[in-house]
Amino acid sequence: MTSLPKAGEPGEVDAAGPPRRTGRRRGPSATQHDIVAAARKLFAEHGYRGATMRAIAAEANVDAALIHHFFTSKEGVFAAAMEDAFPPPDAIAHVVVGGLDGLAERLVRFFLGLWERPDTREPLLAVMRSAVSYDEAARMLGEFVTGRILGTITATIEQPDPELRAALIGSQLVGLAMIRYVIKVEPLASASTDTVVAALVPTVDRYLTGSFHPTRS
Amino acid sequence: MTSLPKAGEPGEVDAAGPPRRTGRRRGPSATQHDIVAAARKLFAEHGYRGATMRAIAAEANVDAALIHHFFTSKEGVFAAAMEDAFPPPDAIAHVVVGGLDGLAERLVRFFLGLWERPDTREPLLAVMRSAVSYDEAARMLGEFVTGRILGTITATIEQPDPELRAALIGSQLVGLAMIRYVIKVEPLASASTDTVVAALVPTVDRYLTGSFHPTRS
Repeated sequence: MTSLPKAGEPGEVDAAGPPRRTGRRRGPSATQHDIVAAARKLFAEHGYRGATMRAIAAEANVDAALIHHFFTSKEGVFAAAMEDAFPPPDAIAHVVVGGLDGLAERLVRFFLGLWERPDTREPLLAVMRSAVSYDEAARMLGEFVTGRILGTITATIEQPDPELRAALIGSQLVGLAMIRYVIKVEPLASASTDTVVAALVPTVDRYLTGSFHPTRS
Repeated sequence: MTSLPKAGEPGEVDAAGPPRRTGRRRGPSATQHDIVAAARKLFAEHGYRGATMRAIAAEANVDAALIHHFFTSKEGVFAAAMEDAFPPPDAIAHVVVGGLDGLAERLVRFFLGLWERPDTREPLLAVMRSAVSYDEAARMLGEFVTGRILGTITATIEQPDPELRAALIGSQLVGLAMIRYVIKVEPLASASTDTVVAALVPTVDRYLTGSFHPTRS
């Protein structure tokens, strides 16, 4: 949240989608990158459980011992694939810049931007598909999305229950990804992004700022 | 939608959850029921792709040829498991009775009721887990939920774009099931049903009756 690579206008995100990645975070080697790409491919094709460390090693053309050296375990490989599929923290900073005013729309448009662009959609689809077939991977993905991504956003707005707000926003956005991009249910799959924005922004806005205390005893 | 087994008050659903199933629809034989139960178990454990017809036959203690006879294909077995996991049409009729007034709350409470009760949650978890690991099963599940269940509801309320409304409601409810019941993200996983109702009912209500025409050109 502290370093912004460019002086970005908040509106920039809306118009152009998420900023392009200009480099790898934490500078992993080409080999590490190959392993993550191979893992993502096999996770997507065979699910988390079906993708063995040995098959990932073969796909990446490396020795399995090297994967253990870099990532310790399959969970470690999955965590790296997951982190690689989501935008870096400085991209999320662009969403938060500008404060609560218009935040819901910036967030929804940012999320849609990730899924509309083939180069960012493919890794997201891969981690989502592998996660839902295996509890531990699903838990890691859920905590990553609601905690590290949405939690970072709701923590900045000084409203009560930031974790509940993050989880509610996560429930709508994960469900949208499932219905529109994974299962492709019509007419939502081919609705314009502006229609989706018109439908979802008031929902996300209420999850950011509304009150959820039950009215009945 | 035409036959109601009892004269149900609309409010009955809110208080007691979905009505209990008192019999099997279409009267399948005990063997068919065994096959569906075995398939559900293996789909949940190994995903749609991992559960072979031969393994389902072994689990159900029947000859594989009998499964082909009853269900034609694995898709057919999955369709039967899916239909079995969801409430029968007359239960959905209880949600619709009473019209648009309070419909969003009846629908959300009905959905939560299905997931809160272990005997109805387990089959739902099984079909959801198997579906998300395989595109064809996911498509079948998505079309069943948004078309046959939610579509039935939105078709009754005489609003424009009933299919889009059904898909939007589906996106929120499927996402809630993922985050609260499958991935179990806190604090949403242990939030009271009344808190979830307070959060989700205005969302579902707006998807039932709101306008999603983009305000910008």
